[in-house]
Amino acid sequence: MWKLPVIVVNFKLYTQGSGKKALDLIKTMERVGEERGVTLVAALNPLDLGALRKDAHIPVIIQHADAVEFGAFTGRINLEVAKERGADGVLVNHSERRLTIADIDYLVERAKKLNMVSLVCANNPRVSGALAFLRPDFIAMEPPELIGGDISVSKAKPEAITQTIEAVKSVADIPVLVGAGIKSGEDVKRALELGAQGVLVASGIVKARNPYEALNDLVDGMM
Amino acid sequence: MWKLPVIVVNFKLYTQGSGKKALDLIKTMERVGEERGVTLVAALNPLDLGALRKDAHIPVIIQHADAVEFGAFTGRINLEVAKERGADGVLVNHSERRLTIADIDYLVERAKKLNMVSLVCANNPRVSGALAFLRPDFIAMEPPELIGGDISVSKAKPEAITQTIEAVKSVADIPVLVGAGIKSGEDVKRALELGAQGVLVASGIVKARNPYEALNDLVDGMM
Amino acid sequence: MWKLPVIVVNFKLYTQGSGKKALDLIKTMERVGEERGVTLVAALNPLDLGALRKDAHIPVIIQHADAVEFGAFTGRINLEVAKERGADGVLVNHSERRLTIADIDYLVERAKKLNMVSLVCANNPRVSGALAFLRPDFIAMEPPELIGGDISVSKAKPEAITQTIEAVKSVADIPVLVGAGIKSGEDVKRALELGAQGVLVASGIVKARNPYEALNDLVDGMM
Amino acid sequence: MWKLPVIVVNFKLYTQGSGKKALDLIKTMERVGEERGVTLVAALNPLDLGALRKDAHIPVIIQHADAVEFGAFTGRINLEVAKERGADGVLVNHSERRLTIADIDYLVERAKKLNMVSLVCANNPRVSGALAFLRPDFIAMEPPELIGGDISVSKAKPEAITQTIEAVKSVADIPVLVGAGIKSGEDVKRALELGAQGVLVASGIVKARNPYEALNDLVDGMM
Repeated sequence: MWKLPVIVVNFKLYTQGSGKKALDLIKTMERVGEERGVTLVAALNPLDLGALRKDAHIPVIIQHADAVEFGAFTGRINLEVAKERGADGVLVNHSERRLTIADIDYLVERAKKLNMVSLVCANNPRVSGALAFLRPDFIAMEPPELIGGDISVSKAKPEAITQTIEAVKSVADIPVLVGAGIKSGEDVKRALELGAQGVLVASGIVKARNPYEALNDLVDGMM
Repeated sequence: MWKLPVIVVNFKLYTQGSGKKALDLIKTMERVGEERGVTLVAALNPLDLGALRKDAHIPVIIQHADAVEFGAFTGRINLEVAKERGADGVLVNHSERRLTIADIDYLVERAKKLNMVSLVCANNPRVSGALAFLRPDFIAMEPPELIGGDISVSKAKPEAITQTIEAVKSVADIPVLVGAGIKSGEDVKRALELGAQGVLVASGIVKARNPYEALNDLVDGMM
Repeated sequence: MWKLPVIVVNFKLYTQGSGKKALDLIKTMERVGEERGVTLVAALNPLDLGALRKDAHIPVIIQHADAVEFGAFTGRINLEVAKERGADGVLVNHSERRLTIADIDYLVERAKKLNMVSLVCANNPRVSGALAFLRPDFIAMEPPELIGGDISVSKAKPEAITQTIEAVKSVADIPVLVGAGIKSGEDVKRALELGAQGVLVASGIVKARNPYEALNDLVDGMM
Repeated sequence: MWKLPVIVVNFKLYTQGSGKKALDLIKTMERVGEERGVTLVAALNPLDLGALRKDAHIPVIIQHADAVEFGAFTGRINLEVAKERGADGVLVNHSERRLTIADIDYLVERAKKLNMVSLVCANNPRVSGALAFLRPDFIAMEPPELIGGDISVSKAKPEAITQTIEAVKSVADIPVLVGAGIKSGEDVKRALELGAQGVLVASGIVKARNPYEALNDLVDGMM
């Protein structure tokens, strides 16, 4: 498993995180990870994951999978093929790709059987506690209204972080990541002080002018 | 553009058309395509498309794309990245992955700008005529109740084929493919006699005991 | 059938158009319709339609129906029950409730069999032309970016109106309504001059301080 | 609140539970409820709920609501209007109408504020435990593969009932209903013996030749 605390970078479909540019960012993450001795995880779209896996020497997860196995499922993605193509894990139920709870349950169970890491997103502390009951490897709580914004969850909603950790702990011992608006080492530091064991970031790194510096700044907050 | 008539093989998420086995089937298609001088097109899931493109020497299309460009679209796939990863075209609105008409319209327009081939699926003649108005490169009509079954559209619903061609021609000069249950050269032959300019096949080839023979049989129907 | 040109008022789920307030607005529409001799149609949510039908003496349509008949469809709405509860027609594929083309086709066909009026929404001229092929009773074109805004389609995109009418007429003789941002008699007048045979309005009437005056202003544009 | 154990009858969109026939079934439920002194609850589609509420003298709930308040939501249904039209509660996340967990959370919270009863459906014991964390008024567990079938959950999966009750109780003290294939008093009796505090039934009552007798048989299992 990954060394905690962990930084998960969601490449989304940002121009700076897709196609050829995705590899540049992966290389930057590799470099920072090695230099600083931390685990940096890339969440990729399936086209880039398939194409880049062998060139990526960091953990990679897929941004979404459908709740299906093999069969007549045109245009769907399953965990089995994701694993064969090199995915170490799966991001489940991101705010931009919400799922039914039956499908979340399926994916968490299936990931376990396939020995893949499951990171399940939740939009608030209450939903985090509920999802903890499904025993994913990680819960990632992100208030939707702060995603992609300029003010981080650490500053805007510190109580949501502590409530999430409390809710999750009341159900099971599962590490909690937090995300939404996280851009600086200070944001990371506060999140960890409040009990988080990692962060989920996207625009703050992917769209940074200098992702190498931005990542190092985040890592500073972990030290 | 592709040589007509064309055979499009939808790999779906069948075990025999996913992961490493997808490459075997692509190689078989290459061989038959070369030996017989016909265009065989593979419709792949995005993970395999990303991973296999450089090893595939036939046209490949992606089974689905979302109606988005670049941006904060976690877990989505767009045509831009599909093209960069080697997709020559896109299958749109398959019965197992239906889209709103606004999204179909977006994808056909976007494919044109990206110089990608668009194959839009329709479930009956009337819908085929409607979709022809959007000017995709191909209309592929498949009665949903026959998909994956043992009796082909050519035998079960020949009138649906002629009505589709009539409906499409009344709107624009767009080649029509037909699909659903097509497994033999005879099925192909009848479809072409009725005016189709190609076929969309899936289980008949992907799940065949001997895909090489099954493909050759289909091609016989084109000669 | 309704007298043309027609004004269709989409009550949406606005507070001013839901629950008890819905009946007030219906009564205002009745009064204006009688005083001015025009057809005013109310598009209602299913709860209010079921509750208010017998008190409404104007044509009412349902804002949405699912593409199902009777059966094990918990939480769905079909045209059969809508008709039994008094719906004269159905609004299909509104921008806030988009449908697959297969479902649009189903609903238009089903409405015909049930002798209900179908108004199918389209987001641009091209999609309008495509949907005309399905032969609904009306096409209602609304550019999504103008819906709920302060500038009307008549002013912002007159060319979209003429292109829509052209596209539809090239396929079938179907009356075209236009909508998005329409608030004044002048907006209506321009739309009709450009060839529309009615308008689809929502916030401009439902959220008006004085719906009676606002409706009369719209009707002025029809005279 | 309702007297336990409770029988909730989901009318779905069955012909026998829709339109005018819905009132007949409601009247039968009233009669049985009075004669036997038990709480029988009807889950109605929104059109019938709006039309029939004032004639129904039993608790009624709506089969589904969308996770929205008032606003520009064409074709949507909210709890606010459902309450105004007489709904005492809401069925949430039925297997035929699954929701994201964020939407389930919204609806449970909103129902509390509106003083409406929330019954949240779950497809297995694990999901039941997760949903218990959201504190709905009831959890209703139904194995999807048994819904509408001839063998009841009580007989086919008694362990799923006990596991569900255990999972829910480990989180919060929330009454559990069970459903799927329940048709007889014996089915009800076993469910209650296993710890359930009520049942969710549909075809077994709605499609029964004699709903009066079928309901009485169910009630026998509660005595």
